[in-house]
Amino acid sequence: MTEKKQTTDYSAIEKKKEAATRLVDFGETLYTQMTQNEFPWITMPSRSIENIIYSPKLRQYILGDRRVKRSARNIRHIRPLSQLVWTAFFAHHLATNRKTSTLRDVYYSAQAYEMSFKDQSESDNVIIDLETVTGSAREEFNIFPEERSAVFGDLTIEYTVPGYEGRRMNLTSHPDGLMVGPALTYSEFVKTSANKVIAIEKGGLFTRFIEENVHTKHNALLVLTAGQAPRATRHFIRRLNKELELPVYILTDGDPWGMHIAMVIISGSANAAHIRDLTTPDAKWSGVWATDIQSYKLPSIPLTERDVKRLHELQRDPRYKEKLWQREIKTFMKIGKKAEQEAFSRYGLTYIVDEYLPAKLEAD
Amino acid sequence: MTEKKQTTDYSAIEKKKEAATRLVDFGETLYTQMTQNEFPWITMPSRSIENIIYSPKLRQYILGDRRVKRSARNIRHIRPLSQLVWTAFFAHHLATNRKTSTLRDVYYSAQAYEMSFKDQSESDNVIIDLETVTGSAREEFNIFPEERSAVFGDLTIEYTVPGYEGRRMNLTSHPDGLMVGPALTYSEFVKTSANKVIAIEKGGLFTRFIEENVHTKHNALLVLTAGQAPRATRHFIRRLNKELELPVYILTDGDPWGMHIAMVIISGSANAAHIRDLTTPDAKWSGVWATDIQSYKLPSIPLTERDVKRLHELQRDPRYKEKLWQREIKTFMKIGKKAEQEAFSRYGLTYIVDEYLPAKLEAD
Repeated sequence: MTEKKQTTDYSAIEKKKEAATRLVDFGETLYTQMTQNEFPWITMPSRSIENIIYSPKLRQYILGDRRVKRSARNIRHIRPLSQLVWTAFFAHHLATNRKTSTLRDVYYSAQAYEMSFKDQSESDNVIIDLETVTGSAREEFNIFPEERSAVFGDLTIEYTVPGYEGRRMNLTSHPDGLMVGPALTYSEFVKTSANKVIAIEKGGLFTRFIEENVHTKHNALLVLTAGQAPRATRHFIRRLNKELELPVYILTDGDPWGMHIAMVIISGSANAAHIRDLTTPDAKWSGVWATDIQSYKLPSIPLTERDVKRLHELQRDPRYKEKLWQREIKTFMKIGKKAEQEAFSRYGLTYIVDEYLPAKLEAD
Repeated sequence: MTEKKQTTDYSAIEKKKEAATRLVDFGETLYTQMTQNEFPWITMPSRSIENIIYSPKLRQYILGDRRVKRSARNIRHIRPLSQLVWTAFFAHHLATNRKTSTLRDVYYSAQAYEMSFKDQSESDNVIIDLETVTGSAREEFNIFPEERSAVFGDLTIEYTVPGYEGRRMNLTSHPDGLMVGPALTYSEFVKTSANKVIAIEKGGLFTRFIEENVHTKHNALLVLTAGQAPRATRHFIRRLNKELELPVYILTDGDPWGMHIAMVIISGSANAAHIRDLTTPDAKWSGVWATDIQSYKLPSIPLTERDVKRLHELQRDPRYKEKLWQREIKTFMKIGKKAEQEAFSRYGLTYIVDEYLPAKLEAD
């Protein structure tokens, strides 16, 4: 068993406290401006397309040097600035009252304060502004995604949510898996015997891995992404990687959509260029590769027009510059085929666990 | 605490054993026919549209009296009959080896036996044939849906899956909720202090209910359906209702799609007319009703053309014959609006828990 490593540069709980502090700082800045008879104003990095730059070093999109200013002196800025201030107030209210919320909840909650958003996309956008201003992900001020995924394996956590403070739970306790929601996201990691994380796209395979004891045979924590991983799950995978120093392997369907599930865990999305805590740059996409379709002679399905169009987009995407990705994109296009994770059942239900997985983990 | 009620007419574990017995019986029937120099044959209820009948008494679709015969004497039947026999063999193999599978896994597994299905829809259909022949839901022979949902509340279960036999778990142990997968589906219910079940469409509201202690304030087990409830979850809700005799309340968005999430839990679908264990006829749709949009003055969204078309379909659907449903369909059409569950946040984050939910539970 590895006892918890104290990492000085990263702790989810500390980051959350920091987010609360940043909200207060934001309020104080505006307040000070007003007491000095200034029109309140802020600046933040621009999120316009020209200012979204791919950083090969960080392996994610970041924002460039362009900044925008919002000032109450400018009549066109009054509305978005007021919305931003209200959102900061509401986020602080959530954090202080230890309640969680969703993007949609925030939109409707605004109406309780006669704060008008013309639709949810307007309020979503202001929440992204708040992330940009504070540099904190919205989960750190308790705004969580609607979607839920799951985890299973030998990791003991300690809860920090109200009513559960100090309680511990081992993540092998429930063989169908434990949901990744606010409580798990902000739990402390106490101890683990795992030496790797395997993220899996599909529920059926997640269950197969548990039934076949992949967690003990390979000392792995298993994470179900349930399709595209929700932000809270990407954050959780990052924590497993950074705090526990566990390498992360990602298994998806062998098609452009599966590749991109892996890539978003690794490098994030352009939409999240303004924050840093959602990516796991060292995570590896372990398959199903296009070259696996060939070498394992997997049952396959012809690529659709939409698949091919998507492959062309990915080919030009800076996140896909590295050799592995380019090779796999080209192979997909050459063979004109894709394969699902379940295709390995062609060789028996446990082949993927007994043969494919060990080969993939060793190849690393 | 209510100790487990021994119900003589219903036990998930017994049903599962029965399913295994039925598979063996099916094999024996064919075997006996062959030893008597007969071409093997079976009959089963027809699933053609004309034979799917709504039963107001059972509050679900059932199959009528028409039967179809499949005989190896008929050259056109040889293929589907062989596929059915293989599927029965494979289902029995899963059950004996205590492994679970998905519809897609079965499709690919067939290829390991050189059993040819032209696509997954063909193998899915043969699995439905097997359900029809045996009268058992496919979950009873370990073929589970891909999707996962969750549960939370004071219910102690005892696992029956390999490696966990006899272990107990209280479903309040993890405040993000426990996944409903094969292990939970076939666990024994040991004891509960709950006196009702509340099924919730959305993850954000499920978390809100846990945070606001709805499970203790209202002695409720909370089930997240995560949109349309997966079959295993519908089966689980039925067990809570039948075995523990708990009334079930369903909360969805206030639109035709939300209504139908509730209806499928209550009355199932026409596709499942051949089985009986997936419905909870006494469950209640508690909202969000169209009339709630009016009486609570909820923020609402205009119905789309697609919504209106769907409402017209539901209006003619025999499952929607009762007064409540017809009234709500008419109200939706009259006001031309729909509302999301989160719309209650317009009155503050806890209004839905403090005001709306108690009113709805009392109205019953």
